[in-house]
Amino acid sequence: MTENITRRGMLLVLSSPSGAGKSTLSRLLLEKDDNIALSVSMTTRTPRPGEIDGVDYNFVSTAEFENLVQQDGFLEHAKVFDNYYGTPAAPVVKAIQAGRDVLFDIDWQGTQQLTQKAAKDLVRVFILPPSSQELERRLKERAQDSAAVVARRMSKASEEISHWAEYDYIIVNDELEKSEQQLFSILQAERLKRVRQTGLVPFVHEIIGEE
Amino acid sequence: MTENITRRGMLLVLSSPSGAGKSTLSRLLLEKDDNIALSVSMTTRTPRPGEIDGVDYNFVSTAEFENLVQQDGFLEHAKVFDNYYGTPAAPVVKAIQAGRDVLFDIDWQGTQQLTQKAAKDLVRVFILPPSSQELERRLKERAQDSAAVVARRMSKASEEISHWAEYDYIIVNDELEKSEQQLFSILQAERLKRVRQTGLVPFVHEIIGEE
Repeated sequence: MTENITRRGMLLVLSSPSGAGKSTLSRLLLEKDDNIALSVSMTTRTPRPGEIDGVDYNFVSTAEFENLVQQDGFLEHAKVFDNYYGTPAAPVVKAIQAGRDVLFDIDWQGTQQLTQKAAKDLVRVFILPPSSQELERRLKERAQDSAAVVARRMSKASEEISHWAEYDYIIVNDELEKSEQQLFSILQAERLKRVRQTGLVPFVHEIIGEE
Repeated sequence: MTENITRRGMLLVLSSPSGAGKSTLSRLLLEKDDNIALSVSMTTRTPRPGEIDGVDYNFVSTAEFENLVQQDGFLEHAKVFDNYYGTPAAPVVKAIQAGRDVLFDIDWQGTQQLTQKAAKDLVRVFILPPSSQELERRLKERAQDSAAVVARRMSKASEEISHWAEYDYIIVNDELEKSEQQLFSILQAERLKRVRQTGLVPFVHEIIGEE
């Protein structure tokens, strides 16, 4: 788009079962596009060695987290065992108002919550593996795990995939290069949506001189 | 997308004032993408020298045209002076059911009619000139016409532009190459929409074995 037309950013959600290539695609998108940033989650769990506060997560106390939940300050959050994880609304709202896009690498449960909170700014992309055989192959390849571990992963993957129809776009990740190009097309097309190009109103006014 | 996933085609509408570059962009799209074809209109006007029946238009009698109107057989139609022009529904329905896209080079009035008839399969793109000065320059360049002719064209262009907010996507045609690339992104992204990839239901069923 013409660079000087103001636009409103979007929340771009990527979901997929593990093994479908989501992490790689997210990384490529973040590397190659300057106008999208990964949403940084807030968590109450202890940082692992090497994790940086504000980069990997925003690490907070349980009291702080629960306080923000009380204030309805999260776009989505969940408790996993004893730890909270969530996306605070404030930085996301600030980013999209400034015309920057925010990438979310979340599962179907987080996506359902985002849909409740931010439907009009949301673009939901689901990445499917090309076949169950290929998914199993990729899950096995990851480590020398027992058959039971692989079976549990396959079951978790199936559960995630069963929510595919809650997404706007579906990419079947057969060849990485093609999937990457498809993801960029989605991002670019969504940026061209009339409703996101908020600066078009004054722009058109200038062209046709309408009051 | 994975080539073997069946999809439903779309009706891609391009509208713009004359001088904004719509014809060039349409031509490029038709040349470079094998899966989209220009909708052939039906008309009651006499063929001009060199025009081919079935290619430029389907030339029919007034009785034939009015008969099809009676049968609600048009996606859109209009009477311009003494001649009818319109898009018969049948070939378009056939194309999109076969997974092929159909391009429409029509104005805001035709687009409004298509929206009534085929909203869910419709993708509406409006092309704006980069400025009123540039639009005027392009309209003047076309021929050595009188100031009155140029003024009338500018007025007609303004009327067309005033309907920009009835479209899904807006391309500001500043540089042709960039606009072309944006148009291809829209086409590709729309093909990845879940609702158009009708073959995903059996595909996902095969992956997760759901009943």
